[in-house]
Amino acid sequence: MIKVAVDAMGGDYAPAEIVKGAVEAAREKTQIQVILVGQEDIVKKELEKQDYPRDRVSVVHASEVIETEEPPVNAIRKKKDSSIVVGMNMVKKQEADAFVSAGSSGAILVGGQVIVGRIKGVERPPLAPLIPTETGVSLLVDCGANVGARASHLVQFARMGSIYMEHVIGIKHPRVAIVNIGAEEEKGNALVKETFPLLKECKDINFIGSIEAREIPHGGADVIVCEAFVGNVILKLYEGVGATLINKVKGGMMVNLRSKIGALLVKPALKETLKTFDASQYGGAPLLGLNGLVVKTHGNSKAVEVKNSIIQCVTFKEQEINEKIRESLKPEEAGQENQEA
Amino acid sequence: MIKVAVDAMGGDYAPAEIVKGAVEAAREKTQIQVILVGQEDIVKKELEKQDYPRDRVSVVHASEVIETEEPPVNAIRKKKDSSIVVGMNMVKKQEADAFVSAGSSGAILVGGQVIVGRIKGVERPPLAPLIPTETGVSLLVDCGANVGARASHLVQFARMGSIYMEHVIGIKHPRVAIVNIGAEEEKGNALVKETFPLLKECKDINFIGSIEAREIPHGGADVIVCEAFVGNVILKLYEGVGATLINKVKGGMMVNLRSKIGALLVKPALKETLKTFDASQYGGAPLLGLNGLVVKTHGNSKAVEVKNSIIQCVTFKEQEINEKIRESLKPEEAGQENQEA
Repeated sequence: MIKVAVDAMGGDYAPAEIVKGAVEAAREKTQIQVILVGQEDIVKKELEKQDYPRDRVSVVHASEVIETEEPPVNAIRKKKDSSIVVGMNMVKKQEADAFVSAGSSGAILVGGQVIVGRIKGVERPPLAPLIPTETGVSLLVDCGANVGARASHLVQFARMGSIYMEHVIGIKHPRVAIVNIGAEEEKGNALVKETFPLLKECKDINFIGSIEAREIPHGGADVIVCEAFVGNVILKLYEGVGATLINKVKGGMMVNLRSKIGALLVKPALKETLKTFDASQYGGAPLLGLNGLVVKTHGNSKAVEVKNSIIQCVTFKEQEINEKIRESLKPEEAGQENQEA
Repeated sequence: MIKVAVDAMGGDYAPAEIVKGAVEAAREKTQIQVILVGQEDIVKKELEKQDYPRDRVSVVHASEVIETEEPPVNAIRKKKDSSIVVGMNMVKKQEADAFVSAGSSGAILVGGQVIVGRIKGVERPPLAPLIPTETGVSLLVDCGANVGARASHLVQFARMGSIYMEHVIGIKHPRVAIVNIGAEEEKGNALVKETFPLLKECKDINFIGSIEAREIPHGGADVIVCEAFVGNVILKLYEGVGATLINKVKGGMMVNLRSKIGALLVKPALKETLKTFDASQYGGAPLLGLNGLVVKTHGNSKAVEVKNSIIQCVTFKEQEINEKIRESLKPEEAGQENQEA
């Protein structure tokens, strides 16, 4: 049985879509036990609208809500009875295996480090969303809020990201690349130049070198390593260019009668294809390297994304990702073991 | 009369498309005099295929060619008779007002600084391409190869970019923003935090604060200021996501007979709309802050982009952009003059 605490109060469509998604996850996977964290009366009212497995869906009361605009450090410190703090404390006390939230990114990142805590040896836990590509998905580490990473952080991001892609997403020997402004080893800023040779030395990852941003959407690597400022720019630009282009396409189809008729015929097929390029389809972004699992789903998540994020936690737990991360932090022994295996 | 030296040997489609574009520019604007720089026999052979104004199109011989893969500093130093070095020397000696090239970005950036030289007071000349947005175009400064900019560089980028957008593109009081990972002033990395208050103090620009990458394609600002590593990532990701999505749209239209018929009807209108989101439509990227003008056009430029890049030089010269940049570097006096005007 895998216990997932879910923030019923976080996100644009909370609590209705969160509760719905949580119930759907529990119905789909019988090994999931969902604990909805939030204001009990509100959550229970939503829950009663659903047909749910009563033995595997419960509610834990949390009287406060952290708003998106609140300064995260303060919010985590002051709102002890918020859904985020209560849910994360459950992970810390091992009353839950994972915590899923569509709430304040800042509060989730701070809470993950301060409440749940890092795996011993992890210098910085990165936020690692999956992004769609022409050929599938890639993991972008780090997109968190802690900018100014050091080379040793990036090396850990590469290792943790590699484990995640191999064992949760199922890509054998995932290709790891570092974001750079050219393919040559001598290119890049100080951080990239320092990190590049360190990644080359890692025996336990499949490092393929630099990746230029142009190649990311083409699926040029499975694990895309970068510092959080750059990762944040990549993630948000992905969304922005995608949304703008899709608007352009829609607008372009509506300019005259001929194209409007064409649009009617094209629409169903096009919708299906564009779905594969929609980041929200791929569940949430894990905060890697914590003593437990914290997953951040998009603020505008609806039931389907919440469901996918919860189900993701099952694979994470079953594949013992945290144990594998712990092992990878002793590169000497772990490297040899891997080679012998 | 405006004299534009054109690198006839640089780019994927050189010399044919370059020569064609240069001739078209001269035919379209009678105040342009084009000087094609390259291997004389080859260039003249291409030229003879065209119907061109003989008094305004000439050829200057340069025996060498700098290849894209060559290390730029070395190439500029050793290949004294390359089309890039010869063309840039013409700008330096004021035998030409501008130099346009689709050749090696690295060599153009190095040559611009080393041969043409900076305007007195300019600390670093940024490469500033126009990128398409939902509402028009924005200028992205810096996308060059010199990473690790300082706050004072970024302030100059903002000033020079602002002048360019106002007087070359014709946007009154262009909105200037700095790329950041959140809208709040306290967010960002060390460079952004240091630059933000300096930009706020600039009386001669319309600084609107931070811009998240998501808002760039929506046209959230006219001048997008960032350090070159980030600018490079933005520019290339723009291209990559755009190309991937358009492929997806094309693929999605071809999945069944119904959608194929729809595609035929939609195609002409769609093509026209997507053209407005094609970066190559907007001519080349100027290297701002040089004693003269150097414009880098995309390596895969065809005649139309080459033509647009050459015509761009006319406005740059007529609007006396370099004089305006020179003035803006004395912020105290210039600021007051602007307010009085």
